[in-house]
Amino acid sequence: MKPEIKIPQATAKRLPLYYRFLQNFANEGKKRVSSQELSEAMKIDSATIRRDFSYFGALGKKGYGYDVNYLLEFFRRTLNQDEATNVALIGVGNLGNALLKYNFHKNQNTKIVVAFDTKAPDEGTTINDIPVFRPERLEEKFKEYQAELAILTVSARSAQDVTDRLVAMGAKGILNFTPVRLSVPDSMKLMNIDLSLELQALIYLIRNNQE
Amino acid sequence: MKPEIKIPQATAKRLPLYYRFLQNFANEGKKRVSSQELSEAMKIDSATIRRDFSYFGALGKKGYGYDVNYLLEFFRRTLNQDEATNVALIGVGNLGNALLKYNFHKNQNTKIVVAFDTKAPDEGTTINDIPVFRPERLEEKFKEYQAELAILTVSARSAQDVTDRLVAMGAKGILNFTPVRLSVPDSMKLMNIDLSLELQALIYLIRNNQE
Repeated sequence: MKPEIKIPQATAKRLPLYYRFLQNFANEGKKRVSSQELSEAMKIDSATIRRDFSYFGALGKKGYGYDVNYLLEFFRRTLNQDEATNVALIGVGNLGNALLKYNFHKNQNTKIVVAFDTKAPDEGTTINDIPVFRPERLEEKFKEYQAELAILTVSARSAQDVTDRLVAMGAKGILNFTPVRLSVPDSMKLMNIDLSLELQALIYLIRNNQE
Repeated sequence: MKPEIKIPQATAKRLPLYYRFLQNFANEGKKRVSSQELSEAMKIDSATIRRDFSYFGALGKKGYGYDVNYLLEFFRRTLNQDEATNVALIGVGNLGNALLKYNFHKNQNTKIVVAFDTKAPDEGTTINDIPVFRPERLEEKFKEYQAELAILTVSARSAQDVTDRLVAMGAKGILNFTPVRLSVPDSMKLMNIDLSLELQALIYLIRNNQE
């Protein structure tokens, strides 16, 4: 893949999904797959799939479909599945605690290696075998555990403060579960998951989009 | 708002966010706001904001910006903020348990009223004052508590089965936290939150989009 390709965030979010379904097809022994078959399995319309794939050049042949192993290898490389990424989780409240126990490592290339919480003892503790330290030690331990990005599950009140510290220490990305719209420089990649907004949007679709 | 308006899901997801920020502006006593100001506060580019608003017709005047109270009232009605929606949560594992305790009701119009879990006792129990029953009683209790939609935090293995039951009993929507791509009829609204995918996509952006 050419490194200068700029793809929309919505497409970026679907890439790991393509990878997951191509793994399924490969496991079933399938050699080729059409955008229609992908569409049915993934519940994404086939025009969207073809448009997503077009960002990466010619991945398939007209009338033939896509070669499963070629695509799988392509997405594996594109998603850097061989390279492990260490993740820090900041804020072990109810949600943070659930995420520490969440099976993120079904994709074996990501791992929560360290967590931070104001209620951790001075010497640290562990939850689910993951070391948990006080936030004062964020800079020290983030570096020591070679974390590259952070899952942010702190209170709204401290979200921007923690973010500023992450920016200052050169963290590369934040998966933001707080409702705060964080200020970050362009060098920092940000993905927001706002559970209340998702629920509100679903209700909106239910109320206004019935046919 | 005209009921036949069809807006993209990405826009639908931003509507509650607009509402939240307009509330902030109104609380600060602001009377009018430009798309630029909204853009800066919300970290969404102003072209996107203007395009989103254009789905609903003329909401502002050129050179004047938007009237805060008018917009607030508009989004309040559009998002049915006066109408309460009862939500059921199915699957009280780590994530489900965290969501039962999550502050969804900052938007006062949504409320988790009932939950279901295989480990609940026959007579039911409560978590955070929310009644929890065994899944065998889903049809009975979903109706009794007048739930309209479900948050799905069950295992991948049972996700489609539970979904089929929700469809059969006339539930209107699912907020799906399982990694399963659910089969639902068009009448059922579906919003997927796949935490692994979000994390993978963030890593992709970090690795491939640096400038």
